[in-house]
Amino acid sequence: MTSTQRGPRERMVFSAAQLIRRQGVTGTGIRDVVEHAAAPRGSVQHYFPGGKDQLVHEAVDWAGAYAGSRVQRYLDRAADPTPSGLFAALVKQWSDEFRADGYGAGCPLVATVADRVADDATRERVVSAFATWRRPVADALAGMGVPRRRAPALATLMISTLEGAIVLARAERSVTPLTTVVRELGPLLDAAVARRR
Amino acid sequence: MTSTQRGPRERMVFSAAQLIRRQGVTGTGIRDVVEHAAAPRGSVQHYFPGGKDQLVHEAVDWAGAYAGSRVQRYLDRAADPTPSGLFAALVKQWSDEFRADGYGAGCPLVATVADRVADDATRERVVSAFATWRRPVADALAGMGVPRRRAPALATLMISTLEGAIVLARAERSVTPLTTVVRELGPLLDAAVARRR
Repeated sequence: MTSTQRGPRERMVFSAAQLIRRQGVTGTGIRDVVEHAAAPRGSVQHYFPGGKDQLVHEAVDWAGAYAGSRVQRYLDRAADPTPSGLFAALVKQWSDEFRADGYGAGCPLVATVADRVADDATRERVVSAFATWRRPVADALAGMGVPRRRAPALATLMISTLEGAIVLARAERSVTPLTTVVRELGPLLDAAVARRR
Repeated sequence: MTSTQRGPRERMVFSAAQLIRRQGVTGTGIRDVVEHAAAPRGSVQHYFPGGKDQLVHEAVDWAGAYAGSRVQRYLDRAADPTPSGLFAALVKQWSDEFRADGYGAGCPLVATVADRVADDATRERVVSAFATWRRPVADALAGMGVPRRRAPALATLMISTLEGAIVLARAERSVTPLTTVVRELGPLLDAAVARRR
Protein backbone atom coordinates (compact mmCIF):
# COMPACT_ATOMS: atom_id res chain seq x y z
CA MET A 1 0.00 0.00 0.00
CA THR A 2 2.96 2.35 -0.49
CA SER A 3 2.20 5.14 -2.89
CA THR A 4 5.69 5.85 -4.19
CA GLN A 5 5.38 3.85 -7.38
CA ARG A 6 1.98 5.13 -8.44
CA GLY A 7 1.26 7.92 -10.88
CA PRO A 8 -0.57 11.05 -9.71
CA ARG A 9 -3.98 9.85 -10.89
CA GLU A 10 -3.74 6.57 -9.01
CA ARG A 11 -2.28 8.32 -5.97
CA MET A 12 -5.21 10.71 -5.83
CA VAL A 13 -7.76 7.88 -5.88
CA PHE A 14 -5.84 6.10 -3.14
CA SER A 15 -5.53 9.29 -1.10
CA ALA A 16 -9.24 10.04 -1.47
CA ALA A 17 -10.02 6.57 -0.11
CA GLN A 18 -7.62 7.01 2.80
CA LEU A 19 -9.06 10.41 3.75
CA ILE A 20 -12.66 9.20 3.44
CA ARG A 21 -11.76 6.33 5.77
CA ARG A 22 -10.70 8.87 8.42
CA GLN A 23 -13.04 11.81 8.09
CA GLY A 24 -15.90 10.83 5.81
CA VAL A 25 -16.84 12.17 2.38
CA THR A 26 -18.17 15.51 3.64
CA GLY A 27 -15.00 16.10 5.63
CA THR A 28 -12.69 15.31 2.71
CA GLY A 29 -11.91 18.27 0.46
CA ILE A 30 -10.30 18.08 -2.95
CA ARG A 31 -7.40 20.17 -1.69
CA ASP A 32 -6.77 17.65 1.09
CA VAL A 33 -6.61 14.91 -1.51
CA VAL A 34 -4.17 16.79 -3.72
CA GLU A 35 -1.97 17.49 -0.74
CA HIS A 36 -2.16 13.92 0.64
CA ALA A 37 -1.30 12.53 -2.80
CA ALA A 38 1.50 15.06 -3.34
CA ALA A 39 -0.12 15.64 -6.74
CA PRO A 40 0.53 18.67 -8.95
CA ARG A 41 -1.98 21.50 -8.71
CA GLY A 42 -4.35 21.38 -11.64
CA SER A 43 -4.17 17.60 -11.77
CA VAL A 44 -7.70 17.26 -10.39
CA GLN A 45 -9.21 18.98 -13.40
CA HIS A 46 -6.95 17.02 -15.70
CA TYR A 47 -7.63 13.57 -14.29
CA PHE A 48 -11.03 14.09 -12.69
CA PRO A 49 -13.13 16.41 -14.83
CA GLY A 50 -16.13 15.25 -12.78
CA GLY A 51 -14.53 16.82 -9.69
CA LYS A 52 -14.99 15.51 -6.19
CA ASP A 53 -17.87 13.21 -7.15
CA GLN A 54 -15.70 11.39 -9.67
CA LEU A 55 -12.87 11.12 -7.18
CA VAL A 56 -15.20 9.70 -4.54
CA HIS A 57 -16.68 7.23 -7.00
CA GLU A 58 -13.28 5.96 -8.03
CA ALA A 59 -12.20 5.69 -4.40
CA VAL A 60 -15.29 3.56 -3.75
CA ASP A 61 -14.49 1.37 -6.78
CA TRP A 62 -10.94 0.98 -5.52
CA ALA A 63 -12.15 -0.09 -2.10
CA GLY A 64 -14.43 -2.78 -3.55
CA ALA A 65 -11.73 -4.14 -5.80
CA TYR A 66 -9.20 -4.14 -2.98
CA ALA A 67 -11.53 -5.95 -0.58
CA GLY A 68 -12.40 -8.51 -3.25
CA SER A 69 -8.74 -9.16 -4.00
CA ARG A 70 -8.13 -10.17 -0.39
CA VAL A 71 -10.31 -13.24 -0.87
CA GLN A 72 -8.10 -14.63 -3.64
CA ARG A 73 -5.07 -13.82 -1.54
CA TYR A 74 -6.42 -16.06 1.23
CA LEU A 75 -7.21 -18.87 -1.23
CA ASP A 76 -3.72 -18.64 -2.72
CA ARG A 77 -2.07 -18.95 0.67
CA ALA A 78 -4.25 -21.30 2.69
CA ALA A 79 -3.22 -24.95 2.67
CA ASP A 80 -6.72 -26.06 3.62
CA PRO A 81 -9.20 -23.21 3.06
CA THR A 82 -12.25 -23.16 5.34
CA PRO A 83 -15.08 -20.65 5.73
CA SER A 84 -13.91 -19.75 9.24
CA GLY A 85 -10.35 -19.41 7.96
CA LEU A 86 -11.47 -17.03 5.23
CA PHE A 87 -13.45 -14.93 7.71
CA ALA A 88 -10.51 -14.88 10.12
CA ALA A 89 -8.19 -13.78 7.30
CA LEU A 90 -10.48 -10.93 6.23
CA VAL A 91 -10.79 -9.79 9.84
CA LYS A 92 -7.06 -10.17 10.50
CA GLN A 93 -6.25 -7.65 7.82
CA TRP A 94 -8.14 -5.13 9.93
CA SER A 95 -6.78 -6.12 13.32
CA ASP A 96 -3.25 -6.04 11.90
CA GLU A 97 -3.80 -2.56 10.53
CA PHE A 98 -5.39 -1.31 13.76
CA ARG A 99 -2.53 -2.65 15.83
CA ALA A 100 0.10 -1.20 13.50
CA ASP A 101 -1.44 2.14 12.56
CA GLY A 102 -4.07 2.88 15.20
CA TYR A 103 -7.81 3.06 14.84
CA GLY A 104 -8.17 6.24 12.84
CA ALA A 105 -9.18 4.71 9.51
CA GLY A 106 -12.27 2.57 8.91
CA CYS A 107 -13.94 1.13 5.84
CA PRO A 108 -14.43 3.74 3.10
CA LEU A 109 -17.68 2.09 2.00
CA VAL A 110 -19.23 2.44 5.45
CA ALA A 111 -18.03 6.05 5.64
CA THR A 112 -19.53 6.81 2.23
CA VAL A 113 -22.89 5.31 3.17
CA ALA A 114 -22.84 7.28 6.43
CA ASP A 115 -22.88 10.71 4.82
CA ARG A 116 -23.58 10.19 1.11
CA VAL A 117 -26.29 7.57 0.78
CA ALA A 118 -28.78 10.22 -0.38
CA ASP A 119 -26.66 10.77 -3.49
CA ASP A 120 -27.88 8.09 -5.89
CA ALA A 121 -24.89 8.02 -8.21
CA THR A 122 -22.55 7.55 -5.25
CA ARG A 123 -24.85 5.03 -3.61
CA GLU A 124 -24.88 2.90 -6.76
CA ARG A 125 -21.10 2.83 -6.80
CA VAL A 126 -21.16 1.61 -3.20
CA VAL A 127 -23.62 -1.14 -4.10
CA SER A 128 -21.34 -2.18 -6.92
CA ALA A 129 -18.29 -2.13 -4.62
CA PHE A 130 -20.01 -4.33 -2.04
CA ALA A 131 -20.99 -6.72 -4.85
CA THR A 132 -17.38 -6.79 -6.06
CA TRP A 133 -16.40 -7.87 -2.57
CA ARG A 134 -19.25 -10.25 -1.85
CA ARG A 135 -19.05 -12.19 -5.12
CA PRO A 136 -15.59 -13.69 -4.52
CA VAL A 137 -16.51 -14.39 -0.90
CA ALA A 138 -19.58 -16.35 -2.02
CA ASP A 139 -17.61 -18.11 -4.75
CA ALA A 140 -14.90 -19.06 -2.27
CA LEU A 141 -17.48 -20.43 0.18
CA ALA A 142 -19.07 -22.47 -2.58
CA GLY A 143 -15.63 -23.76 -3.55
CA MET A 144 -15.16 -24.95 0.03
CA GLY A 145 -18.38 -26.93 -0.08
CA VAL A 146 -21.01 -24.47 1.15
CA PRO A 147 -24.16 -25.13 -0.90
CA ARG A 148 -24.33 -22.73 -3.86
CA ARG A 149 -27.72 -21.43 -2.81
CA ARG A 150 -26.59 -20.54 0.68
CA ALA A 151 -23.15 -19.10 -0.09
CA PRO A 152 -24.31 -15.54 -0.98
CA ALA A 153 -26.29 -15.31 2.28
CA LEU A 154 -23.28 -16.37 4.33
CA ALA A 155 -21.15 -13.87 2.42
CA THR A 156 -23.63 -11.15 3.41
CA LEU A 157 -23.44 -12.31 7.02
CA MET A 158 -19.63 -12.28 6.99
CA ILE A 159 -19.39 -8.82 5.47
CA SER A 160 -22.10 -7.36 7.72
CA THR A 161 -20.46 -8.76 10.84
CA LEU A 162 -17.00 -7.59 9.83
CA GLU A 163 -18.21 -4.07 9.00
CA GLY A 164 -20.04 -3.71 12.29
CA ALA A 165 -17.13 -5.08 14.30
CA ILE A 166 -14.79 -2.60 12.59
CA VAL A 167 -17.01 0.23 13.84
CA LEU A 168 -16.99 -1.15 17.40
CA ALA A 169 -13.23 -1.70 17.29
CA ARG A 170 -12.58 1.87 16.14
CA ALA A 171 -14.82 3.26 18.87
CA GLU A 172 -13.21 1.15 21.57
CA ARG A 173 -9.69 1.42 20.16
CA SER A 174 -9.44 -2.31 20.67
CA VAL A 175 -9.35 -5.37 18.43
CA THR A 176 -11.53 -7.26 20.90
CA PRO A 177 -14.76 -6.88 18.88
CA LEU A 178 -12.92 -8.33 15.86
CA THR A 179 -11.47 -11.31 17.72
CA THR A 180 -14.85 -11.87 19.37
CA VAL A 181 -16.80 -12.12 16.11
CA VAL A 182 -14.20 -14.44 14.60
CA ARG A 183 -14.47 -16.77 17.58
CA GLU A 184 -18.27 -16.70 17.70
CA LEU A 185 -19.07 -16.84 13.99
CA GLY A 186 -16.39 -19.30 12.84
CA PRO A 187 -18.15 -22.51 13.91
CA LEU A 188 -21.40 -21.45 12.22
CA LEU A 189 -19.57 -20.76 8.97
CA ASP A 190 -17.77 -24.11 8.99
CA ALA A 191 -20.99 -25.94 9.84
CA ALA A 192 -22.43 -24.69 6.54
CA VAL A 193 -20.05 -26.90 4.58
CA ALA A 194 -22.06 -29.81 3.20
CA ARG A 195 -20.77 -33.08 4.57
CA ARG A 196 -19.19 -34.92 1.70
CA ARG A 197 -16.46 -37.08 3.16
CA MET B 1 -40.87 9.12 18.10
CA THR B 2 -43.09 12.16 17.52
CA SER B 3 -41.53 15.38 18.70
CA THR B 4 -44.65 17.39 19.45
CA GLN B 5 -44.69 16.74 23.18
CA ARG B 6 -41.05 17.43 23.87
CA GLY B 7 -39.52 20.66 25.09
CA PRO B 8 -37.02 22.53 22.93
CA ARG B 9 -33.98 21.05 24.64
CA GLU B 10 -35.13 17.49 24.13
CA ARG B 11 -36.25 18.25 20.59
CA MET B 12 -32.83 19.58 19.70
CA VAL B 13 -31.08 16.44 20.96
CA PHE B 14 -33.53 14.31 19.01
CA SER B 15 -33.12 16.45 15.89
CA ALA B 16 -29.34 16.29 16.13
CA ALA B 17 -29.54 12.49 16.25
CA GLN B 18 -31.90 12.40 13.26
CA LEU B 19 -29.70 14.68 11.17
CA ILE B 20 -26.50 12.81 12.10
CA ARG B 21 -28.22 9.61 10.99
CA ARG B 22 -28.73 11.13 7.53
CA GLN B 23 -25.70 13.26 6.83
CA GLY B 24 -23.07 12.53 9.45
CA VAL B 25 -21.67 14.77 12.15
CA THR B 26 -19.59 16.92 9.80
CA GLY B 27 -22.61 17.52 7.57
CA THR B 28 -24.86 18.52 10.46
CA GLY B 29 -24.73 22.19 11.38
CA ILE B 30 -26.17 23.73 14.51
CA ARG B 31 -28.51 25.85 12.40
CA ASP B 32 -29.90 22.71 10.76
CA VAL B 33 -30.62 21.31 14.20
CA VAL B 34 -32.38 24.45 15.40
CA GLU B 35 -34.48 24.50 12.26
CA HIS B 36 -35.29 20.77 12.35
CA ALA B 37 -36.31 21.05 16.01
CA ALA B 38 -38.31 24.22 15.42
CA ALA B 39 -36.43 25.62 18.41
CA PRO B 40 -36.16 29.30 19.28
CA ARG B 41 -33.02 31.07 18.11
CA GLY B 42 -30.61 31.47 20.98
CA SER B 43 -31.74 28.21 22.52
CA VAL B 44 -28.50 26.50 21.56
CA GLN B 45 -26.44 28.79 23.76
CA HIS B 46 -29.00 28.50 26.51
CA TYR B 47 -29.31 24.73 26.55
CA PHE B 48 -25.98 23.70 25.05
CA PRO B 49 -23.25 26.04 26.25
CA GLY B 50 -20.76 23.46 24.94
CA GLY B 51 -22.07 24.09 21.42
CA LYS B 52 -22.13 21.48 18.70
CA ASP B 53 -19.90 19.07 20.61
CA GLN B 54 -22.33 18.97 23.52
CA LEU B 55 -25.26 18.50 21.18
CA VAL B 56 -23.52 15.63 19.40
CA HIS B 57 -22.59 14.01 22.70
CA GLU B 58 -26.15 14.13 23.95
CA ALA B 59 -27.44 12.79 20.65
CA VAL B 60 -25.04 9.87 21.02
CA ASP B 61 -26.21 9.28 24.60
CA TRP B 62 -29.81 9.37 23.42
CA ALA B 63 -29.08 6.78 20.72
CA GLY B 64 -27.48 4.37 23.20
CA ALA B 65 -30.33 4.71 25.68
CA TYR B 66 -32.92 4.29 22.95
CA ALA B 67 -31.26 1.16 21.53
CA GLY B 68 -30.93 -0.31 25.01
CA SER B 69 -34.58 0.34 25.77
CA ARG B 70 -35.63 -1.78 22.79
CA VAL B 71 -34.29 -4.87 24.52
CA GLN B 72 -36.62 -4.49 27.49
CA ARG B 73 -39.47 -3.80 25.09
CA TYR B 74 -38.87 -7.19 23.47
CA LEU B 75 -38.68 -8.94 26.83
CA ASP B 76 -41.92 -7.30 27.94
CA ARG B 77 -43.78 -8.45 24.84
CA ALA B 78 -42.35 -11.86 24.00
CA ALA B 79 -44.28 -14.83 25.36
CA ASP B 80 -41.23 -17.08 25.06
CA PRO B 81 -38.09 -14.96 24.61
CA THR B 82 -35.25 -16.54 22.65
CA PRO B 83 -31.90 -15.20 21.48
CA SER B 84 -32.99 -15.44 17.84
CA GLY B 85 -36.27 -13.73 18.71
CA LEU B 86 -34.42 -10.87 20.38
CA PHE B 87 -32.12 -10.46 17.40
CA ALA B 88 -35.06 -10.57 15.00
CA ALA B 89 -36.89 -7.94 17.06
CA LEU B 90 -33.89 -5.58 17.07
CA VAL B 91 -33.50 -6.02 13.33
CA LYS B 92 -37.22 -5.66 12.68
CA GLN B 93 -37.23 -2.19 14.13
CA TRP B 94 -34.86 -1.23 11.31
CA SER B 95 -36.61 -3.07 8.50
CA ASP B 96 -39.92 -1.54 9.59
CA GLU B 97 -38.43 1.94 9.55
CA PHE B 98 -36.74 1.41 6.20
CA ARG B 99 -39.95 0.15 4.64
CA ALA B 100 -42.01 3.00 6.10
CA ASP B 101 -39.61 5.95 5.77
CA GLY B 102 -37.02 4.92 3.20
CA TYR B 103 -33.33 4.25 3.66
CA GLY B 104 -32.08 7.77 4.32
CA ALA B 105 -31.31 7.40 8.01
CA GLY B 106 -28.85 4.94 9.55
CA CYS B 107 -27.45 4.40 13.02
CA PRO B 108 -26.16 7.65 14.57
CA LEU B 109 -23.41 5.76 16.40
CA VAL B 110 -22.00 4.36 13.15
CA ALA B 111 -22.24 7.80 11.54
CA THR B 112 -20.42 9.39 14.47
CA VAL B 113 -17.62 6.85 14.35
CA ALA B 114 -17.33 7.36 10.59
CA ASP B 115 -16.33 11.01 10.76
CA ARG B 116 -15.58 11.79 14.42
CA VAL B 117 -13.63 8.89 15.85
CA ALA B 118 -10.50 11.05 16.05
CA ASP B 119 -12.24 13.27 18.61
CA ASP B 120 -11.60 11.49 21.89
CA ALA B 121 -14.40 13.08 23.91
CA THR B 122 -16.94 12.13 21.25
CA ARG B 123 -15.44 8.68 20.82
CA GLU B 124 -15.79 7.99 24.53
CA ARG B 125 -19.47 8.89 24.41
CA VAL B 126 -19.90 6.42 21.54
CA VAL B 127 -18.17 3.69 23.55
CA SER B 128 -20.50 4.44 26.43
CA ALA B 129 -23.55 4.38 24.14
CA PHE B 130 -22.59 1.01 22.68
CA ALA B 131 -22.09 -0.30 26.23
CA THR B 132 -25.54 1.02 27.20
CA TRP B 133 -26.94 -1.02 24.34
CA ARG B 134 -24.82 -4.13 24.74
CA ARG B 135 -25.35 -4.56 28.47
CA PRO B 136 -29.11 -5.23 28.33
CA VAL B 137 -28.58 -7.48 25.29
CA ALA B 138 -26.06 -9.57 27.22
CA ASP B 139 -28.27 -9.59 30.32
CA ALA B 140 -31.25 -10.68 28.24
CA LEU B 141 -29.24 -13.49 26.64
CA ALA B 142 -28.08 -14.68 30.05
CA GLY B 143 -31.68 -14.56 31.25
CA MET B 144 -32.62 -16.87 28.39
CA GLY B 145 -30.02 -19.41 29.40
CA VAL B 146 -26.92 -18.36 27.47
CA PRO B 147 -23.94 -18.98 29.77
CA ARG B 148 -22.99 -15.75 31.59
CA ARG B 149 -19.45 -15.86 30.32
CA ARG B 150 -20.50 -16.11 26.70
CA ALA B 151 -23.41 -13.66 26.68
CA PRO B 152 -21.35 -10.46 26.21
CA ALA B 153 -19.55 -12.00 23.22
CA LEU B 154 -22.83 -12.95 21.57
CA ALA B 155 -24.15 -9.46 22.26
CA THR B 156 -21.10 -8.04 20.44
CA LEU B 157 -21.77 -10.42 17.55
CA MET B 158 -25.43 -9.40 17.35
CA ILE B 159 -24.71 -5.67 17.43
CA SER B 160 -21.84 -5.94 14.94
CA THR B 161 -23.93 -7.95 12.51
CA LEU B 162 -26.93 -5.64 12.81
CA GLU B 163 -24.82 -2.52 12.31
CA GLY B 164 -23.13 -3.92 9.22
CA ALA B 165 -26.39 -5.15 7.74
CA ILE B 166 -27.93 -1.70 8.25
CA VAL B 167 -25.13 -0.22 6.14
CA LEU B 168 -25.68 -2.80 3.37
CA ALA B 169 -29.45 -2.29 3.48
CA ARG B 170 -29.11 1.48 3.15
CA ALA B 171 -26.73 1.11 0.22
CA GLU B 172 -28.97 -1.40 -1.56
CA ARG B 173 -32.24 0.27 -0.54
CA SER B 174 -33.44 -3.16 0.40
CA VAL B 175 -34.19 -4.99 3.64
CA THR B 176 -32.69 -8.18 2.20
CA PRO B 177 -29.37 -7.89 4.08
CA LEU B 178 -31.37 -7.56 7.32
CA THR B 179 -33.62 -10.55 6.68
CA THR B 180 -30.58 -12.54 5.54
CA VAL B 181 -28.60 -12.01 8.74
CA VAL B 182 -31.64 -12.84 10.89
CA ARG B 183 -32.11 -16.10 9.04
CA GLU B 184 -28.45 -17.07 9.10
CA LEU B 185 -27.52 -15.98 12.60
CA GLY B 186 -30.66 -17.04 14.47
CA PRO B 187 -29.84 -20.75 14.80
CA LEU B 188 -26.34 -19.99 16.11
CA LEU B 189 -27.78 -17.69 18.77
CA ASP B 190 -30.37 -20.20 19.93
CA ALA B 191 -27.76 -22.98 20.01
CA ALA B 192 -25.89 -20.96 22.65
CA VAL B 193 -28.65 -21.58 25.19
CA ALA B 194 -27.39 -24.15 27.67
CA ARG B 195 -29.57 -27.25 27.57
CA ARG B 196 -31.42 -27.44 30.81
CA ARG B 197 -34.69 -29.16 30.04
